[in-house]
Parts: sequence; C-alpha cells; structure tokens
Amino acid sequence: MELLVRYLDRSNSVSSVMNQDLIKEENLRDDLKYYFMSPCEKYRARRHIPWKLGVQILKIAMITTQLILFGLNNQLVVSYKEENMMALKNLFLKHYSGMDEDDYSVAVYTQQDVYDSLFYVLDQYSQLDRLSVGPISYAEDEDGKLLPITICKEYYKRGSVTPSDEAYDIDSELETVCMSQPKTANQSQSHNSSFFDLDFYRLVDIKITFQLKGINLQTVRRRELPDCYSFYVTITFDNQCHSGKVKISLDIDAQSCACQDWKISGTAQKNTHYLLVFDAFVILVCLTSAVLCTRSIILAVRLLQRFSRFLHENYNRKVCEDDQSEFLNGWYVLVIVSDLLAIIGSILKMEIQAKSLTSYDVCSIFLGTSTLMVWVGVIRYLGYFQKYNVLILTMKAAFPKVLRFCCCAGMIYLGYTFCGWIVLGPVP
Amino acid sequence: MELLVRYLDRSNSVSSVMNQDLIKEENLRDDLKYYFMSPCEKYRARRHIPWKLGVQILKIAMITTQLILFGLNNQLVVSYKEENMMALKNLFLKHYSGMDEDDYSVAVYTQQDVYDSLFYVLDQYSQLDRLSVGPISYAEDEDGKLLPITICKEYYKRGSVTPSDEAYDIDSELETVCMSQPKTANQSQSHNSSFFDLDFYRLVDIKITFQLKGINLQTVRRRELPDCYSFYVTITFDNQCHSGKVKISLDIDAQSCACQDWKISGTAQKNTHYLLVFDAFVILVCLTSAVLCTRSIILAVRLLQRFSRFLHENYNRKVCEDDQSEFLNGWYVLVIVSDLLAIIGSILKMEIQAKSLTSYDVCSIFLGTSTLMVWVGVIRYLGYFQKYNVLILTMKAAFPKVLRFCCCAGMIYLGYTFCGWIVLGPVP
Amino acid sequence: MELLVRYLDRSNSVSSVMNQDLIKEENLRDDLKYYFMSPCEKYRARRHIPWKLGVQILKIAMITTQLILFGLNNQLVVSYKEENMMALKNLFLKHYSGMDEDDYSVAVYTQQDVYDSLFYVLDQYSQLDRLSVGPISYAEDEDGKLLPITICKEYYKRGSVTPSDEAYDIDSELETVCMSQPKTANQSQSHNSSFFDLDFYRLVDIKITFQLKGINLQTVRRRELPDCYSFYVTITFDNQCHSGKVKISLDIDAQSCACQDWKISGTAQKNTHYLLVFDAFVILVCLTSAVLCTRSIILAVRLLQRFSRFLHENYNRKVCEDDQSEFLNGWYVLVIVSDLLAIIGSILKMEIQAKSLTSYDVCSIFLGTSTLMVWVGVIRYLGYFQKYNVLILTMKAAFPKVLRFCCCAGMIYLGYTFCGWIVLGPVP
Amino acid sequence: MELLVRYLDRSNSVSSVMNQDLIKEENLRDDLKYYFMSPCEKYRARRHIPWKLGVQILKIAMITTQLILFGLNNQLVVSYKEENMMALKNLFLKHYSGMDEDDYSVAVYTQQDVYDSLFYVLDQYSQLDRLSVGPISYAEDEDGKLLPITICKEYYKRGSVTPSDEAYDIDSELETVCMSQPKTANQSQSHNSSFFDLDFYRLVDIKITFQLKGINLQTVRRRELPDCYSFYVTITFDNQCHSGKVKISLDIDAQSCACQDWKISGTAQKNTHYLLVFDAFVILVCLTSAVLCTRSIILAVRLLQRFSRFLHENYNRKVCEDDQSEFLNGWYVLVIVSDLLAIIGSILKMEIQAKSLTSYDVCSIFLGTSTLMVWVGVIRYLGYFQKYNVLILTMKAAFPKVLRFCCCAGMIYLGYTFCGWIVLGPVP
Repeated sequence: MELLVRYLDRSNSVSSVMNQDLIKEENLRDDLKYYFMSPCEKYRARRHIPWKLGVQILKIAMITTQLILFGLNNQLVVSYKEENMMALKNLFLKHYSGMDEDDYSVAVYTQQDVYDSLFYVLDQYSQLDRLSVGPISYAEDEDGKLLPITICKEYYKRGSVTPSDEAYDIDSELETVCMSQPKTANQSQSHNSSFFDLDFYRLVDIKITFQLKGINLQTVRRRELPDCYSFYVTITFDNQCHSGKVKISLDIDAQSCACQDWKISGTAQKNTHYLLVFDAFVILVCLTSAVLCTRSIILAVRLLQRFSRFLHENYNRKVCEDDQSEFLNGWYVLVIVSDLLAIIGSILKMEIQAKSLTSYDVCSIFLGTSTLMVWVGVIRYLGYFQKYNVLILTMKAAFPKVLRFCCCAGMIYLGYTFCGWIVLGPVP
Repeated sequence: MELLVRYLDRSNSVSSVMNQDLIKEENLRDDLKYYFMSPCEKYRARRHIPWKLGVQILKIAMITTQLILFGLNNQLVVSYKEENMMALKNLFLKHYSGMDEDDYSVAVYTQQDVYDSLFYVLDQYSQLDRLSVGPISYAEDEDGKLLPITICKEYYKRGSVTPSDEAYDIDSELETVCMSQPKTANQSQSHNSSFFDLDFYRLVDIKITFQLKGINLQTVRRRELPDCYSFYVTITFDNQCHSGKVKISLDIDAQSCACQDWKISGTAQKNTHYLLVFDAFVILVCLTSAVLCTRSIILAVRLLQRFSRFLHENYNRKVCEDDQSEFLNGWYVLVIVSDLLAIIGSILKMEIQAKSLTSYDVCSIFLGTSTLMVWVGVIRYLGYFQKYNVLILTMKAAFPKVLRFCCCAGMIYLGYTFCGWIVLGPVP
Repeated sequence: MELLVRYLDRSNSVSSVMNQDLIKEENLRDDLKYYFMSPCEKYRARRHIPWKLGVQILKIAMITTQLILFGLNNQLVVSYKEENMMALKNLFLKHYSGMDEDDYSVAVYTQQDVYDSLFYVLDQYSQLDRLSVGPISYAEDEDGKLLPITICKEYYKRGSVTPSDEAYDIDSELETVCMSQPKTANQSQSHNSSFFDLDFYRLVDIKITFQLKGINLQTVRRRELPDCYSFYVTITFDNQCHSGKVKISLDIDAQSCACQDWKISGTAQKNTHYLLVFDAFVILVCLTSAVLCTRSIILAVRLLQRFSRFLHENYNRKVCEDDQSEFLNGWYVLVIVSDLLAIIGSILKMEIQAKSLTSYDVCSIFLGTSTLMVWVGVIRYLGYFQKYNVLILTMKAAFPKVLRFCCCAGMIYLGYTFCGWIVLGPVP
Repeated sequence: MELLVRYLDRSNSVSSVMNQDLIKEENLRDDLKYYFMSPCEKYRARRHIPWKLGVQILKIAMITTQLILFGLNNQLVVSYKEENMMALKNLFLKHYSGMDEDDYSVAVYTQQDVYDSLFYVLDQYSQLDRLSVGPISYAEDEDGKLLPITICKEYYKRGSVTPSDEAYDIDSELETVCMSQPKTANQSQSHNSSFFDLDFYRLVDIKITFQLKGINLQTVRRRELPDCYSFYVTITFDNQCHSGKVKISLDIDAQSCACQDWKISGTAQKNTHYLLVFDAFVILVCLTSAVLCTRSIILAVRLLQRFSRFLHENYNRKVCEDDQSEFLNGWYVLVIVSDLLAIIGSILKMEIQAKSLTSYDVCSIFLGTSTLMVWVGVIRYLGYFQKYNVLILTMKAAFPKVLRFCCCAGMIYLGYTFCGWIVLGPVP
C-alpha cells in the first residue's frame, strides 16, 4: 500500500525527461487514481454514470420483494397445515387439552384409558365425514375403493412357548402384528376382537395409520386453482419406557397432490404467469450485476499487470502483496456470489411454482442467503462516506480481538457446560 | 460565535473617541450581554423578575394535571367497555374459557359443535333479560319495536345446477344469505329451519349481529349524569381456511348515545363546569406563554439586526451564520409549538366533554405530545447550571455518531431479518 | 485539609525555641496524628486494643441474628394466615379455581349464578363444622351465643313511589338493607325470603360478613403456647360497574386473641424468656457502641478546639471549614443512628413478644434499617485498606455525576411516561 | 524475573576466559532457554516431539467422551424414574392435575375430600395390577408373601381421660397409630373401621406407605440386561399447619435391585465390557499425563537448583522469589490435579457399572471437575500465541480488582437483602 501511495504522490513532483514515457506514465497514474475513486468522484471526474450502483439498488428492491412474496405464500400453506393438524388432534385424541407436551399430546396412565383412547380413534374415524367441519374425506386407492385404517402393535416376543404362571417371560426381539379395518367395519364387534387384548408388560407401541384427503380452498377467492393434499396420519401409543405412562401423539405427513374429486369453476392460473415474468426479470438483473462486477475485476487485474510491468521496467521493483490485495476488491466477490445464489434460488422458485419441485428448504436457503449478502453489501456504499468509513475500519480492526476473546471464553464455557451438566444434571 | 465573543471582550479595552457613537456602542454591548444571560443573572443585573420562567412552571403543573384527569376519565370508560365485552363473551360463547386466542375466542372442530354454538347464541339472546346481571336490554327502532337478530351465512356458489353425486362442485364466487329472527321467535321451530342446513365444504363464514343497549351507572354516585351506550354485537363463525377448525369470535362496537328509558333523579352536570373553567385557564396560560416567547424571538431578531447594522457601519463586516443561529433560541420554538398543541388539545377536550365530538384519539395525541415537549423543555433550565450543561453538550455531540452506528447496524439487521425469516420461518 | 497536613509535616523540621510551648506543641501534634490513624496503626503505636471495632463486629452478628429470628417467626404466622385464607376461599366460593384475578376471586355473569353463589355461601356456613378440616369454629359473643351471619345489600334508591312499567327509575342516593341469620336457620326457607329478590339494575353490592375462630397449633410442638385468631370474613358481590360482570371476593381480617375453649397441656412459655434475654443483650451492646462513638465524637471536638486555639494563639490563623469537617467523622454518626434504631426496634420487639403491642410494621422497619446501616458501616473498615480506599473514593466522586444524569433522564422519562400513557393507553 | 532475563541476555555478549566454566555456563544457559520455550519452539530447536501436548489432546477427547456416555446413561435412568413418579401420582392421587405446587401435589379443604382421597389410594392400590399400564407389581417379602400397605396417623394426644364436651383438650405430645392392610382386604369393610374416624383438630398427618416392584425394559432393546427397581412409595396427608388445608404429596424412593420374577432371553452384558475397557484406557492416559507432568516439575526443580548454585558460586547472589516462582509451572499442577480426579472418577464409574457402588453424586462431581479443569487447561496452550497471551495477562491483572469490587458490593447487598426481607417480606 505504501509503495502505491508513494508512487501516486511522488509522481506529481517528479519531472520526467522522456516524452513518450511521460505520457504513458501519466496515463497509468490517471487510471490508477480513477480506479480508487468512489462512484461519486468518478462521476465528477469523467462524467461516468454509475451503472453498477444503479443495478445494485434495483437488485436490492427486486430480491427483497421476491423473498417477501415467497415467504408470504409459504406462510399461507404452513398455517393451513398447522390448523389441519390441530383439527385432527382435536378429532382423534380423547381428552386432548389443546396443548402439546414436549413430545406427545396426551398421556394416559391406566389400561382402561388406553383402550378408551384406542377405540375413540377408531370410532371417530368411522364417522369422520359426519364429524369434521373441514372438506376432509377418506383417501381411495386407484380403483376408487376406500383405503382401510391400519393398526399395528409392536411387542417383545414371548420367551418360551409354554408360559409359566408367575414369571414375566419375554425375549429381547420385537414382533409386529398389524390389522386392517375397512371404514365400514362394525365397531362394537371389532372392539371385541382378540387383537385388542394387549399384554401391557410386553407392549412397546401401537401405531394407527390412515390416509385422508384435504383441499386448501383459501386461494379460490384469489381466483387461483387450489392445492389438494394427502394427509398420512399416524397416531402412536408409545409405551417404550414401560414406566406406566403411555404417551399418545399424532403426526401428519401432508403431501400436495392433484385435485380429482373437485370441480372449481371461475378460477385460473393467470396470476402465476406474472410471478414467473418477475422471477425471470430478477434473474436478468442478477446476471447483469454479475457480468458488470466480473468485468470490473478483469479490468482491475489488467491494471495491476500494467502497473507491475511499469514498476519492473522503470524502477526494477515488484509490487508487494499488500498492494496487490488492494486491487482485488472483496466487495465485488461478495456481489458475484450473492448474484449466483439469487439466480439459483430464483430458478428453483420457478420450478416450485410449476410444481415440478418441492424442495422449499433449499430454495429458501438460497434466496435468504443472497438477500442477506445484498443487504450487507449496502455497507460498502456507506464506506464511501468519510465518517462511516471510520466505523467500518474500527469494526474490521476489532473483529480478530473479539474472535480471540470468544475463543478463550468458549473453552471455559465448554468445560463449564460439561461440568455443570454432569454435576447438576441427571443424577439418578 | 467567535466574532461575537471577540467583539464583546475587546469592547471593554478599546477606547472610542466619538462620544455619540461611544454611548450607542455601550448600549448595544450591554443589551447583547444581557440577552445571553440566564434568568438568575438577569435578575441580579437589572432586577428583572423572570415572568417567563414562572409561566413555564405553572404550565407544567397545569398541563400535567389536565392530562391525568383526562386519562383517568378515559380509563373508567375503557374498563366499563372491557367488562361488558367479557360479560357478553361469557353469555353468548359456549365453552368460553375466559381467555382469548390470537384472533378468536373459541375454536370448534365438529359439525355438532358448530350447530350447538350457533343455537346457544340464539337461545341465550332470546332469554337475555332473564340471564344478564347488568342493565342491558334489547335495542329498539324508532317506533319502539324490538330490533331482530340477524344471521348471515356466506358460502361459495354451487358450480352447476344439477349437483353430481360424487364431486364437490363449487364456484369461486361468494354468495351471502341472511335471516332475521325477532326476539320472540319459537326457538325449537326455528332451529329446524332449512336455513340451518349448512354445507360445510362450501361455507366460508356465519355472522350473527344484534344490537343491545347498556348504561354506565358508575358516574351516578359522583352525581354526574350517566352515559348510555348502544352495543353493536357481531359473532363470527370463521371457516375461511377450510382446515377443519371453525374459529368463533365476538366483537363489540360501543357507541355512546342519549339515555331514553332511564329516569335518574338527584344528578346534575355541575362537575363538568369546573372542568371547563380549568381547561379555559390552561388555554389562557398557554397563550400567555406563547405570546411571551414570540416577543422574546422578535426582540432577539431586532437585536441581531441592530448588531449587524452596527458591524456593517463601523467595521464593514457581516455577522457570520454561526453567530446568527445563536440569536435564534431553539427552546423558544419548542415552547411555542408545545403551547399551540396544548391549546388545540384543550379545545378538543372541551368539545368532547360537551359531547359534540368523540375523537378521543386525536385529542390524546395533542395533549400527550404537548406534555412530552413541556417536560423535555425542563432540560433547558437545567442547561443554565454549569455541570448539567456538560451533560447536554455531550449528548448533543454523541447523537450523530450513535445515529450513524444505528444506520450501519440497521442494514445488517434488515438483511439478517429477511434471511432468518425465510430460512427458519415458514417452510411448509 | 491542606493547612492541617502542612502543619503536621512542617512541625518536624521546624525547631521551636520556647521549651514550654515546644512540649505542648509536640503533644498536640502527637494527638492529632494518633487521631487520624486506623485501628491497626493505633494498636501498633500505643498498644491501644480496638474495643470499638470489637463491639461493632459483635453488634453485626447479634443484630443480624435477631433480625433473622424475628423474620422467621413472622413467616410462620404469615403462612398460617395465607393458608387459612386459601381454605376459606375454597370452602365458600363456588367454582373457585384456586387462582385470584387482579381484585376478585370469581366472576359470575348470570342472575342464576349470582343466586347460586350467594346460597352456596350460606349453605357452606351452616355446615362449616362438618366441612372444614382445620380447627375452625363459629365465634360467640360474650354470653356464649353464636354470632349470626350478616347479609347486607346496597342499592340505588327507587326514583318514584309508583314505579312506571317501562322506565328504569333510580335515584342517585344509595340505600343499605341488612339481614341477620343465625347459624341454625332453615336454609330452604330463608332462600325463599323476599330479601333475596334482587333488582339487579339497582344493585350495587352484597356484603356477607361473619366471624370465625381459629388456632395456630404449629407452635405446640415446640412446646410454646399457641395463638388464637378471630377471623372477620367479608364476602363481597361487587356490581358497582353494572357491566354484567359480578365480581366475588373474600377478605379476611385476622386478629390475634386469647384462647378460651382450648386446653393445651404440656406447653410453657419458657422459650420466650431466652429471646427476651437475647434482646436485652442486643440493647446493651448497642448502648455500649453508641456511648463509645459519642465519646469519640466529643474527644474529636475537644481536639479540634485545642488545635484551633493553638493556631489562633501561635499563628493567629483560623482553622478552615474543610479541616473542621475532617474532625467530624460521618461514620460515627451513622453508627449512633443505627444503634438508636436498633434499640428502639428491640424494645418494640420485646413488647410484641409480650403481646402488649402488634405493630409488626414499625418494628420491622426499625430493625431492618438498623441492620442495613450496620452492614453498610462495614465498608468503613474496608476503607482502611489502601486498595479498597481507591474504590470508595471513586464511588464518592462519581455519585453527583450519576445523580445529575438521573435527574436529566428523569425529566425525559416523566414526559415520555405521561405522553405514552395518554397516547397508547386508555382510549375508549 | 529481571535477574533471570538479564542473565540470559547478557550471557551472549560477555566472553568468559575459563574454558571449563564457559562450557558449563553455556550448557546452563541453553537448558534455561529451552525450558522457557513453547512446544512449537522446542520442536524447532531440538526436534523434540511434544508428547505431553499429544497426551493432553487425547485426554480431552477421552474424558469428554467418557463424561457424555456417563451422563446419557444417567439421563435414561432419571427419565424412567420421573415417568414412574408421574404415573404413580396419576394413579393414586384423586383429582391430580398433572402439576405440582411448591411442596405438595393436591390440596383438599373438606373432611369429605380427605376421606375420599384416602380411600381412593386404598382402592387404587387393591386393583393396581388391573389398572397400571406399566410392568409394576406388588412387592413380596422373602417368603413370597405380598407385603401389606401401611397407614399411619400421627396426632396430638388427648389432654385428659374424660373428654369435656365443649373444650378442645389436647396434649403437646404426639402419638402415632398404624394399621397394616393386606392387598386382598375387603375394601368396603375396612373403610368402616374405627381407625378411619379422624379427629381433625388433633390430626397432624397421615402417612400411607407401600412397596412396589418395577423393571426398566428400555435397555432390553439394546440387548443389555434390564435393571429392576423397588419403589418405596409414601403418600402424606399433611395437616401440620392446622389451617384448614390438607396437603397431599407422594414421594418415591427407588432402589435398584436384582430382577427375580423376570426371564429375559436374548440379552447379554457384553456392551458393558467395552465400557470397562474404555474406562481403563482413560485411566491409563491420565496416569501417563500425570507422570509426564510430575517429571517436568522435577526437572524444573533440578534446573532451578543448578541455576541458583551457579549464581551463588559465580556471582554470590541468590535467586529472588519472583524468579523461583517462574520455574514452578502452575499449569502442571492443574493437569496433575485433574488427572488424579479423573482417575478416581473413572474407578468409581467402573464400580458403579459393576453394581458394587451407587454413589452417582460423588462420581459425577469427580468426573465433572476433572473435565472442567482439562478444558480450562486448553487456555494454557492458547497462551503460547502472542496475542492470546495479552488477553490472559489482562484477565490475570483485572481479577483482584473485580474481587475487591464484589467484596464491597457484597456488603451493601447483604445489608440490603436483610433489610428488604424484613421490611417488605413477612409482616403478618
């Protein structure tokens, strides 16, 4: 850096004899000076309109808008799924209080309560169409037949064939027995089935699985086609711990699928087209920004080569490493990386909207990271103002010290955590 | 500033030859010195009693008292309305737990529960006079006839005229059907009406609206006339999401109105007169304060003109901008603005008390802002003490740096928020 | 201070001619030096054993012990009263959930609920002896007759003698009607009494008051005589707001009284004697400490007089104010004040234990303040160590600045509070 | 330190005449220099591979792994016991809400509720095998007979033999009466027993104790032998306070014991062998580390002796204390202490796994403390880097000041606490 600065400063005072060289040197000096100017100074110096700055500002606005639209859309779907979850829990779990514990919804402690909860699920399922307020229906297989409800119980094998009277005799291996029951089954009869004679001391868990169909009609009012969902419901009676407490939990796996039984008139998918055009425009802007930044980096590298050749020829000296790193602008790299992320994220988003992909997670990570980088990139433009620069330089200088402190504190914290966990924590 | 200070200091040592000018200059110098004195020093110098300071202190006391009286009065009305809300929720919402969720009071999950909650509202309404503890009664129209209860259901139109058996066939357009029921209707009969056959898969929401009359008797004991209220009650069964969860909520729009059916002996509106006099006195004090401050500003401007003319004539120099800004006291502007706000607020308050206005919001913003300014203005008088001045100057100096830091941090925070929301937030 | 220091320092180098005066001056110099020493240095200089320090340490231990004993004793009584309160609420309030709202225990919203809650209280009271688990019984008057339960209802007077049919006609004046019911009253009959025909639109509140006797047997196991209590129970049905919500609350006024109906064998009041002796000893120690400190102050004043007389005679100068204040040790004043408070508190405590006083509040304030002062006084002895002294001096210096800052911030905070309250708060 | 540094520095410039001494001095100088090098420099200087460093790193990994394994294992057992506690509370306590108060689970306020809760426990116990979901059974004595349930009631003795009618007549001494009831007892008959006629005014508490057997089958799936447990259950009806509130609480003392009635096929204790080998390896590593560090300390002491002898002979000077303390490396002491703790902890852990000890508390304290020390020891290696060293030195310097501040603040805090407790706290 010092060499560079010295060179730029000295150059004004030294009078060079050779005319040809003089012009060349003057040129180089001007280019170097121009390179290290802020957009504002560049405009004053050569009336160079700051296209890159404009593109960046446009990009911030567009990427943020895109992200908000994507997030709001996701939020609608999430709330639909959560409310369905809540509704199913209230329908199928007996004595459900509306609040979940850590990893279960209801806990029962007596054999009678287990049977009651079990039969309650079956009864409610058999009359679901008369119960539920929402447009939920039984799923059908490809032939249009209703899919049955499946009850599986898992237990430790009996240890010996002839059970002795006194001793509880079990094997460490697990055994699973399942039973399918069509929706139309006679409930009272099935309850008396020998399948429901549970040996609690051997029982590990009971899993009831069935499949339902739902439709998200929220979008109909916006004249968009609604999404249909298949809900794979699993109700688990968990007795793994054998502590006298059976934990009942309900899980849903919701998968979007085509709507077959519904006829929705008066809707169209028009709105989606606008979104696709917007996404394409975002990609275009990001590409422009990436190309402009790449060009700037290439120009900088060429300038560095010219400068080092000049130094080598005239003064027979090399450009030191610090000076070289001054030419490689880290901000440009940041912008290019964020552009690439935004482009990938936008393409993924278009695929998701066209329903050919469902990887929301990956897409949101790409879009989110690119937005974070774009906003952080704004700090660079603040750095052009004198006073903000001081702040940024201070932050730069303090960073390694803070990191070092965190490193030291982390060690003590880790040791303290381990020690505290074992000393204060789980002592039986 | 420096020019000014230099002038004031130097003036003592320089001996002027011209007698006439000498006196004029001495006069100006004295006036300038006097102008930059604190009230305490002014009193010592010319025995000038600090009227302005007295008026300010009186103003603080009066405006704060006025604000507290206004707030306490509002609080009484607010608590009356909230308790009524609570009472109506307990009367009309079946299984109301006393606690509201985010945007609803009760959630039901089965068709039977929806019917039960619906008929519960109607039943409770029909026997409201025998149920309620409070002096609430049915509202009447101008002819003295009881207003009926209105039930409206909104649903998606049927898609085709001839409904096919299997498919759910709906249109994207909404349809609203309403039914009015007088209070005296036969309940059991009306429940069987075909209006209450709900197609849940098409149903968007049900709204029950009726009107009640209440009276706030709290003020009677203070021998003030009580206020009567019309309660426009709306009970909404919200099925917009079609997720199997119907959210029931109750909203009240309470409007103050004249009491017609009540005869209250032994009360008067005397108390209000005192309040009006007090408000008028507040307006008077604020006007005085505003006039005094305006006079001070005018005097300061004249002094500045005299000083600049003098400088121009004798030394042919101009008063620099910094010195000019010294003459315009920012505190005076603050006081005048706060006075104006207080006057407007007081006038609004008088109008509200005379029941010719109900814009509590606007009035409270005016009164609140003026009180804030008056209290902040106290800091000015602290600034006259040497040591407090240091504090205030420090705060002045640190402000732009803090702002700049917040600006930088804000950028990072914004990016972080967007990124965090999309990455951690709504992923279906 | 400087004068004093200069005097002490210079004195060594200056050789005085007059013999008589020389000795006198030397004496004074020694006394002054000795006066400003720490206990440790005094012991090294003149083998003076630091009695005062010893007394202070003993005092800290004793006062803290006394305070803890007093507090623990109070805590027992408090928990007894709170549990009784809880038990009575559960016995007399229908549908009591075990948790109180802000200012009431149960809220009812329908006329039927008000009647139910009212009769529930009366029923529960009539069979209290068969219900309650605790040793609670009906209170009797001096002749041994059971005191009756009293029900008072307060309502607005009717406006006119001949009530018109339509209008609610009330007067602003309140009227109170009471009814006494002996415990043995026929419940079903009394419920039909016309007293219980409530006009809810006029009703302001109902107050049910009765008196019970309890005994705190906790102390029996420690072989102390138990305390008996009279509970004055008041159950209020509050309809003041006329908002349709009647708030039911239960209040207890518990007063300690002599146990008449109980015969407790095997207990004595021995334990209390030890406590009285201990309290007396605390008073003695505090008196000693106060006397020693007073003596120190008197000695200091005499020394100051000697010093100022000497200065006046020999150098004809006065002792400046700063130097004078050095002689008056603020810590001694603190110790004396804390001693006096502790003595008053201990006397009050002895009176309370002898059951001739019940002003727990006053006593605890005296004892608490004196303990606080005694502990703060420990800082003084830390000040004798070089390094702690720096800390204390820093705190002394920073105090006025912190106060000044708080003053400024307080102004802004006050204005902000008023403004926020009125703008965000109660807007009807 | 300065002497040492001066010696090391000067030595290079001073040319010594005596050959023999020269070599000896050079040797000593080299050894001293080498001694104060960091591992990295040592490797560069003499190609000394840093074994000690390697052992430390290995130790950190192994001790942390061991601690985590121990903790996870304990957590399984703890959760088993807690869930059993919960299950028993739900089975035996009537109206148990699932949430405990401070020191009890359920509170009852009427005599009838006490009887109901009491008989509920007995009823539930008599049909426990048909109720409980978990593999819990009645405990048997050595002859295989079921152990009975025991009910003990404690009350104040009657004061006189002939009870007077009016007065409650009690003695301060306590009396305990117990009753044993076999599981097969006729419930309805036993409820009418005179034992259950409770004089509530004398009753202090009722304790119901019985013994159950449980088995933790969680480990069976990992093909480990399960642990059996004896649960000593105590249900307490606490009426000590005689405040009308009887607090019911349930306590469990769970003791691991041999499984007698169970036959578990297909499990083995293989897994434990691996753990024992791992523990042995940890002990080995810790021993190595301790031996290496002891050796370093011994070498350092010898070097110090050589240096001081040299100084004494050649310059006739003594090594000052500061320099001496430089030779005794505090870190080595820390490492040795942590090694010893880890070795003791590991041995305890092996004993616990072999079921010959159950002192989990002691073992976890040893293991935890050693892990804390090992992690804190990492800071020492950070100290070898220049920049981290600054941090550590700063922390060293600031420590006494922070301590001193805490000391002062502690005094004020203590006084404040006592004062606040007595003034704001328990005032009856």
